Amino acid sequence: METNSNGCNLNRKDPKVKRLKTSGTELEEFDAVFTDLVEGLVNQGKQHKEISAAVDWFKEVCLYNVPFGKKNRGLSVVMTYKRINTDATESELRQARVLGWCVEWLQAFFLVADDVMDKSITHRGKPCWYKKEGVGLIAINDSFYMENCVYAILKRHFKQEDYYTDIVDLFHETTMQTVTGQCLDLITAPETHINFDEFTTERYTAIVKWKTAFYSFYLPVALAMYMAGIKDTATHTAAKTILLKMGTFFQIQDDYLDCYGDPEVIGKIGTDIQDNKCSWLIVQALAKVAPEQRQILQENYGQPEEDKVLKVKAVYKDLDLEQLYRDYEEESYRQLLKDIQSFQGQLPKEVFTDFASKIYKRQK
Amino acid sequence: METNSNGCNLNRKDPKVKRLKTSGTELEEFDAVFTDLVEGLVNQGKQHKEISAAVDWFKEVCLYNVPFGKKNRGLSVVMTYKRINTDATESELRQARVLGWCVEWLQAFFLVADDVMDKSITHRGKPCWYKKEGVGLIAINDSFYMENCVYAILKRHFKQEDYYTDIVDLFHETTMQTVTGQCLDLITAPETHINFDEFTTERYTAIVKWKTAFYSFYLPVALAMYMAGIKDTATHTAAKTILLKMGTFFQIQDDYLDCYGDPEVIGKIGTDIQDNKCSWLIVQALAKVAPEQRQILQENYGQPEEDKVLKVKAVYKDLDLEQLYRDYEEESYRQLLKDIQSFQGQLPKEVFTDFASKIYKRQK
Repeated sequence: METNSNGCNLNRKDPKVKRLKTSGTELEEFDAVFTDLVEGLVNQGKQHKEISAAVDWFKEVCLYNVPFGKKNRGLSVVMTYKRINTDATESELRQARVLGWCVEWLQAFFLVADDVMDKSITHRGKPCWYKKEGVGLIAINDSFYMENCVYAILKRHFKQEDYYTDIVDLFHETTMQTVTGQCLDLITAPETHINFDEFTTERYTAIVKWKTAFYSFYLPVALAMYMAGIKDTATHTAAKTILLKMGTFFQIQDDYLDCYGDPEVIGKIGTDIQDNKCSWLIVQALAKVAPEQRQILQENYGQPEEDKVLKVKAVYKDLDLEQLYRDYEEESYRQLLKDIQSFQGQLPKEVFTDFASKIYKRQK
Repeated sequence: METNSNGCNLNRKDPKVKRLKTSGTELEEFDAVFTDLVEGLVNQGKQHKEISAAVDWFKEVCLYNVPFGKKNRGLSVVMTYKRINTDATESELRQARVLGWCVEWLQAFFLVADDVMDKSITHRGKPCWYKKEGVGLIAINDSFYMENCVYAILKRHFKQEDYYTDIVDLFHETTMQTVTGQCLDLITAPETHINFDEFTTERYTAIVKWKTAFYSFYLPVALAMYMAGIKDTATHTAAKTILLKMGTFFQIQDDYLDCYGDPEVIGKIGTDIQDNKCSWLIVQALAKVAPEQRQILQENYGQPEEDKVLKVKAVYKDLDLEQLYRDYEEESYRQLLKDIQSFQGQLPKEVFTDFASKIYKRQK
């Protein structure tokens, strides 16, 4: 269903939401920059012969962990910069791509460590880095390395720019926000026991905003803004408000797809129920359930058995969470268009509609 | 024995090495700044009510992990700054103390993560943070938090200073060096097997220099130098050369004391032999052993049994490593005095002699 009952058009082909497609060429250009960045890090390290064993190890860390995501966050920097500066030179585009890769490096830092903390087995269709033979807990140090690659790359490529301090500070601030969100997430759903009392909408929204939305949505746009000379606080604050809302919706959609998406399309089988995740679905369910349904959830959530998962899903079905999600999506989209319309700031609105068109109605 | 046979005076009371004692008052002033810094971080976090559970958690992380070391590294910043700027104002001294605490925070970041990677049980006489109930692998995220406290504190207290970017870059560079040293250390002595072929003097020196000396010796002095307006590369490079040598000696001494120090004085019982550590002693032993002695080391090193440890120590005794160390200490000290004498740079030589007097002939 591309147009819903209220006529709110969510079609990806909606002409009001002109899509800026990431061309195959852009992806190739982007990937080529990664190769150069790794080479730069390796060459810098190789100046000191005594650490060459570590340099070889770190090269492998980058090649295994950084370039295998969807690269949406990194490409967002480039796409946003192109929207702001329509006459961008090749050299400026290259700088935007370098910043895009810094976001991907930052994400790799988080993911490698998250996998250790969550005791995950696979990631992006491959064994988690810490699960590889000979790695183990060395992965923790490797995650520090990847975080610090961001600053090594920034220093090499941006030290001469007048916005150097702005972007360094921004990466620090964003890291602190993400680490704060991760902390909230970890203390809300501890390994040892389920505590549904902690699974509130307020806590859920805080986790998503701090753990994901800042680094995935505001960071890429803000980097492009600084590159383009947009520093004023009012524009940054207004853009942040819209982007954080989109980021929150994106995560809610992710939670929805984990349960209701097609594994063939998403490329993985969701396990949020088994993993005791503070997912949007369980939070919504807990807000709506009758006492006996809550009892069923309490007895079956966060456990590996297939029949227990099915019992949780049956409660979700009784509560019609699918419809609740669809209503939420529609309302969220309507609100977003309103926010974009009333946005005031030195930034073309297409920056936001680009994101919106990629996110709403996505199936993976 | 305070004066050795060659008349090289290693006495702590050597009048040639005038000691700048850290007064009780300085330690009190220093500790008071820590309390203010934690309060600052907490207040900043509490501006966002939704993350207050994380803010409370992080406060505990700082209080448990940051202020219980010897604080030598942090105090070095203040001592060095006092040597450079003998007319320092109270406000400047406070800034130096803040920088000192940033070094302590950086160290806490490394130590909390190292304990997880090394599977240590206790640290500084208390259970390791990750061993506390309810913490576990959350400690990894907590270590990220402590790393990023450095930048949050720098931004709050130094953003207005013209050396802000210098010190931020320095912390990044130092972190990268330490992470590189840690990588070398971890891949040289993997958990799974002993490989004496990797235990070379070159590798040992590289690990010590990169993992410890940069952050423990050069970082505190360089921070004080930047604060005092000393930016010139020549002075920094010359100071770094001396400080890294001292840092290397310091670690060698640490390795020596692990085996030959008095547990009553050091406050802990050394376990380098049991833990398969690439210690200075085993590296020296391997360079000197006869094949049959090497066989004994091979069969007994890196294992928990008391009788195996004694067999290793017996080989060390046969090789007279104690004397080897004493000769090394003397030679190292002689070389250091020579280096200090020929030091050229905008820095009083007492900066180095302060360090020397604290380190040489120390027993803990």
